[in-house]
Amino acid sequence: MDPRHAVLFEPLQLGPKVLPNRFYQVPHASGFGIERPRTQAAFRAIKAEGGWGGVCVDYAPVSRDSDESPAVSAVFWDDDDARALGLTAEAVHTHGALAGVELFHGGALSENGHSRSARVAPSQAVSELMWGGLAKELSLADIARIQRDWVSAARRARDVGFDIVYVYGAHGYLLTQFFSTHLNRRTDSYGGSLANRGRFWLETLELVREAVGDDCAIATRIPVHGRDGLPGIETPDMLQLITMASDVVDLFDVNVGEWPEDSGTSRYYPEGHERPWTDQVRQATPKPIVGVGRYTSADLMADIVRTRSLDIIGAARPAIADPFLPRKVAEGRLDEIRECTGSNVCIAREETFNHVGCIQNATAGEEFRRGWHPELFTKAANADRAVLVVGAGPAGMECAMVLGKRGFDAVHLVEAESDIGGRLRWVRQLPTLGDWGRVTDYRAIQLAKLDNVEVITGRRLAAANVLDYGAQIVVVATGSHFRADGVQPHEPTPIVGVDQPHVLTPEQVMVEGRRPSGRRVVVYDTDGYFVAPGVAEQLRSEGFTVDLVTSHAVVSPTSDASLEGDMLRDHLHSSGVQVHRGITLTSVAASAVSGRDEFGDAWTMDADAVVLVTQQQPADALYRSLVDDPDALTAAGIEAVYAIGDVVAPRPISESVFDGHRLAREIDSADPSEPLPYRRERTALS
Amino acid sequence: MDPRHAVLFEPLQLGPKVLPNRFYQVPHASGFGIERPRTQAAFRAIKAEGGWGGVCVDYAPVSRDSDESPAVSAVFWDDDDARALGLTAEAVHTHGALAGVELFHGGALSENGHSRSARVAPSQAVSELMWGGLAKELSLADIARIQRDWVSAARRARDVGFDIVYVYGAHGYLLTQFFSTHLNRRTDSYGGSLANRGRFWLETLELVREAVGDDCAIATRIPVHGRDGLPGIETPDMLQLITMASDVVDLFDVNVGEWPEDSGTSRYYPEGHERPWTDQVRQATPKPIVGVGRYTSADLMADIVRTRSLDIIGAARPAIADPFLPRKVAEGRLDEIRECTGSNVCIAREETFNHVGCIQNATAGEEFRRGWHPELFTKAANADRAVLVVGAGPAGMECAMVLGKRGFDAVHLVEAESDIGGRLRWVRQLPTLGDWGRVTDYRAIQLAKLDNVEVITGRRLAAANVLDYGAQIVVVATGSHFRADGVQPHEPTPIVGVDQPHVLTPEQVMVEGRRPSGRRVVVYDTDGYFVAPGVAEQLRSEGFTVDLVTSHAVVSPTSDASLEGDMLRDHLHSSGVQVHRGITLTSVAASAVSGRDEFGDAWTMDADAVVLVTQQQPADALYRSLVDDPDALTAAGIEAVYAIGDVVAPRPISESVFDGHRLAREIDSADPSEPLPYRRERTALS
Repeated sequence: MDPRHAVLFEPLQLGPKVLPNRFYQVPHASGFGIERPRTQAAFRAIKAEGGWGGVCVDYAPVSRDSDESPAVSAVFWDDDDARALGLTAEAVHTHGALAGVELFHGGALSENGHSRSARVAPSQAVSELMWGGLAKELSLADIARIQRDWVSAARRARDVGFDIVYVYGAHGYLLTQFFSTHLNRRTDSYGGSLANRGRFWLETLELVREAVGDDCAIATRIPVHGRDGLPGIETPDMLQLITMASDVVDLFDVNVGEWPEDSGTSRYYPEGHERPWTDQVRQATPKPIVGVGRYTSADLMADIVRTRSLDIIGAARPAIADPFLPRKVAEGRLDEIRECTGSNVCIAREETFNHVGCIQNATAGEEFRRGWHPELFTKAANADRAVLVVGAGPAGMECAMVLGKRGFDAVHLVEAESDIGGRLRWVRQLPTLGDWGRVTDYRAIQLAKLDNVEVITGRRLAAANVLDYGAQIVVVATGSHFRADGVQPHEPTPIVGVDQPHVLTPEQVMVEGRRPSGRRVVVYDTDGYFVAPGVAEQLRSEGFTVDLVTSHAVVSPTSDASLEGDMLRDHLHSSGVQVHRGITLTSVAASAVSGRDEFGDAWTMDADAVVLVTQQQPADALYRSLVDDPDALTAAGIEAVYAIGDVVAPRPISESVFDGHRLAREIDSADPSEPLPYRRERTALS
Repeated sequence: MDPRHAVLFEPLQLGPKVLPNRFYQVPHASGFGIERPRTQAAFRAIKAEGGWGGVCVDYAPVSRDSDESPAVSAVFWDDDDARALGLTAEAVHTHGALAGVELFHGGALSENGHSRSARVAPSQAVSELMWGGLAKELSLADIARIQRDWVSAARRARDVGFDIVYVYGAHGYLLTQFFSTHLNRRTDSYGGSLANRGRFWLETLELVREAVGDDCAIATRIPVHGRDGLPGIETPDMLQLITMASDVVDLFDVNVGEWPEDSGTSRYYPEGHERPWTDQVRQATPKPIVGVGRYTSADLMADIVRTRSLDIIGAARPAIADPFLPRKVAEGRLDEIRECTGSNVCIAREETFNHVGCIQNATAGEEFRRGWHPELFTKAANADRAVLVVGAGPAGMECAMVLGKRGFDAVHLVEAESDIGGRLRWVRQLPTLGDWGRVTDYRAIQLAKLDNVEVITGRRLAAANVLDYGAQIVVVATGSHFRADGVQPHEPTPIVGVDQPHVLTPEQVMVEGRRPSGRRVVVYDTDGYFVAPGVAEQLRSEGFTVDLVTSHAVVSPTSDASLEGDMLRDHLHSSGVQVHRGITLTSVAASAVSGRDEFGDAWTMDADAVVLVTQQQPADALYRSLVDDPDALTAAGIEAVYAIGDVVAPRPISESVFDGHRLAREIDSADPSEPLPYRRERTALS
């Protein structure tokens, strides 16, 4: 270990408990909650094994009028819930870490899809949720009931082994709603003055401390102001509340602003972007503070702890991307850290009600289901076969790396271009997407360390070359490219007029460097994610007049799932890109484009050039010629040919990485082309 | 029974099985799927008890590369799945009905959120789902594998007792994708000619019939053209496929067009709207045909069966609204049928990944969870108390009705207006929303039949009147109204300039009949559902120039969940209502309104009048004055005062009905103001 980093491994007293080091996986959703208790336990335990000294479970409502359905959350309503979640505490303890639980009440932000109960709030507030309606104003009896629920849940959590119990206030949940001058209009003892608005919070802390404070560390999560603030919450007020709570709290867990800022993506927020806000908390309390910042730099983390800006480095996304980050720091293997890209794939999956996933770490969430360990790999039964992986994009890099770790004698990763990375070579050049390149960088370093894997660039293989190569197993990972013909969803025929020199694809702009001859460029998007806005921003930054025309009702709907939508649209707007929504483009003329609007009415606009971001198509010619000639394969001694990534079907980068990983993990199964069934948790039938 | 309806009760041979009558609950999602097997069984069994001769379970993928997560579906991947779903077959059999299962493969429409497998399709097609990406083109080996999966699933279904096994093709799923000239671009034996495009379908039917045809009826669901058709599927082709399949099929289940048409809401589709399309199927096959049409009229149903337009009346929504519809027809109790409103609340809940719910039937989905039976009510332990329900809107009507059915000696339902219905009195007057009035009509008839319930209209009760009334239990259900001050989500302060005569609320327009003096009207909407578009259409139909200004990114986002969004926006457009999205209105002047756009830039437009559809506020003055004076209550002999519906928190009508029902079901619990914990199914811990 680098001695500068030793400070990160000093234990820290948290009330009655000792945190073994300064790495802490803050509470975050997994999509496993109470429904998948063994999957949850395995997902959390791997982080403890990887060196995180504290590991928390999902958000867990204490009261029945806070249910998060359809999202799957933990729940602490009764003893059966506690028993199920106790599996996680037990599994985390196996590795010497402390287990924490985010006891919370969502108030007006609860969906209550399971109970159909009215949402509750300090005052009658509109929910931001679809199926909106307003919230019920809590009576004094309701407040007392919720506090009793909190105490009961805390006792249950303690009884099943949790070490750290939260009175969770952040993210605009009920305690924050009470503290907000905007949302709390009460005129009783729970509204008005700072002390009154903080009363629910402080009382709950005291009650929980009284109940379990001798056995558990009492934590609270508090939001401080960020770039755009929180409605009705001012930082001086919050700092005062922290001081008032300091005696009863063993750990302050600090976050900033609204969720899109707190989980800020790398597009718009650098590592440690919260510090201007969280640093103020140190002045308000001498108690331990944990905060997040998408930290993956050991130097920066050590500096933060050394200066006591924070006492503990919190992480959600970096711990998903690399559960073994602390161990790698401890062992001085900094170059082996699989750094979070800040792309929020994890959150996009959560926002669409799926379980956790990660662009960097294909094993995230698969610890129980498929028995995948992020750092341990079994030797393949067919490791004596020579493997040729064609194409070093996300899928090919991942597959070759995992095959190497599974002990194959010889794996060749052959790439036609001069560098590995595949589509990431140009995607990481798009404005603000530089950190996505970490997907390539991590794999490049790993591949270089594997003696049994040879990476060959600048060599384009035709079918004949593959047959001659001498491999017994061939994996085709030649990727995809954007269509030049404008074929798009729901429109089976090409756009008319695409065979003109002023009609370009994203790769022609970003890789070939082609630029429109005129100044007025239309970027047409049916893809709905990052490519079209990225190309638009790039061209706009070069001085072109750019109109982003999209078939979607909003620009880049997928970015809403990754919490980036509003910021992305603001960026486009402030950079001067005009947007046109709900338009289907059907033809391109010399100096205009035309189509129809959402109601089928004709639509047209002037344009000197068009970039078509409609749909990808696989570069599958090699794969098809290989599998179409089984005799040639046999003659060449090739036992199997597999396709991975976009050759199978163009998909998001995270799914290509997953696909490459999956094949390598199962390369010695009976039929590696089909995923093995994975373990599923079942509902008890009686 | 009316003898004209006897035809509906004739048994019908379906292959080796006999359907006991002509009522059939077609497959539809419940949100319980494989995750809540006992909840599922109880939800389906109640329909069998209510007289539906055939009852189907949720859609159940046969292959692991068709998983519907995050939606909860049934699944027939292995024997554990079959065991869980067998509970439903068993429960349905208890009441003499046949149990059916919708075995299916979603193809490019599968989310695959659980497996992270590539979606599959006949040809590489774009998925319509967020996190799009394209689908994998199925190889011949893949097709054979899926067919083997179908056969295995069919065997499992038979083995656990299902009587009717589907080869389910409708709704654009995999078999339909193969049949579509738009989506199937294959050049092998599964693409091209009609016979080739139908090959997957027919082969699968034959294989399934061979495997289980002696024991089970073989059903297939097929889509025929509707108003807007299905991409790449022509009705003559489909009729030919039906003829080709006729020998191997025991039951044709016919639907039309895309889902928003198939589950067409009452706003845009009348009862039986599919008949112009489904009637053609009779010419193509002599085999039994089931079809849906939101049928609740026994005369119409009998006519359809008598003329053999259909052999069996299918239902999803009408069977959710009234599981006892067949029994009520059989017993000549037509006026007691709880008719489906066609509001698609059930589907809106499904689309937001919640379990089934219904605006008409609060017990839907609560059969196992809360033990609620739609037609049976236990006598309340405190039935000797006199109950006063104040306010006969959705919550009050429902509560009084259920209290009556629970055998209270005396329930008085007192309404200030001249008629019962509450907000439904004007909501049902909005263009296209007439059928929503069935919520009132059903309850009016039921209330009239209950000797122990007295309905008193035209009497407005003040607190003093309530104290004097002589009731021991008081339920306040006085509803809500739209705010006149324009307070809206995220904006704590009123809109400037609202105190002018040209600023109106929806009730002032619809109930008081006030009309703008000028011609240019802005309807401003932050509510996001049906009110603003309804008022806009109403005023437009009277000749006003109407601009619908909304804070949302799309007009009426909630209508997307009920499948109405596109049609609603088309209607507004074709009626000449202009829409402006992403606008926050902040002030109203004499002849203009102004605010800011989504980027915070100033926005203004000319207007002679404004209708504010921002937020509701409860009419809770009576409730507050009662509970604020407990001594007066005691003196008056009032033991308890409860609030239900919008008095608690303004919410959708379905939730008010649910709230009123819940209170009445639990009026004799220890604390009726708090819902009792409901039964939850648990994940096995080992």
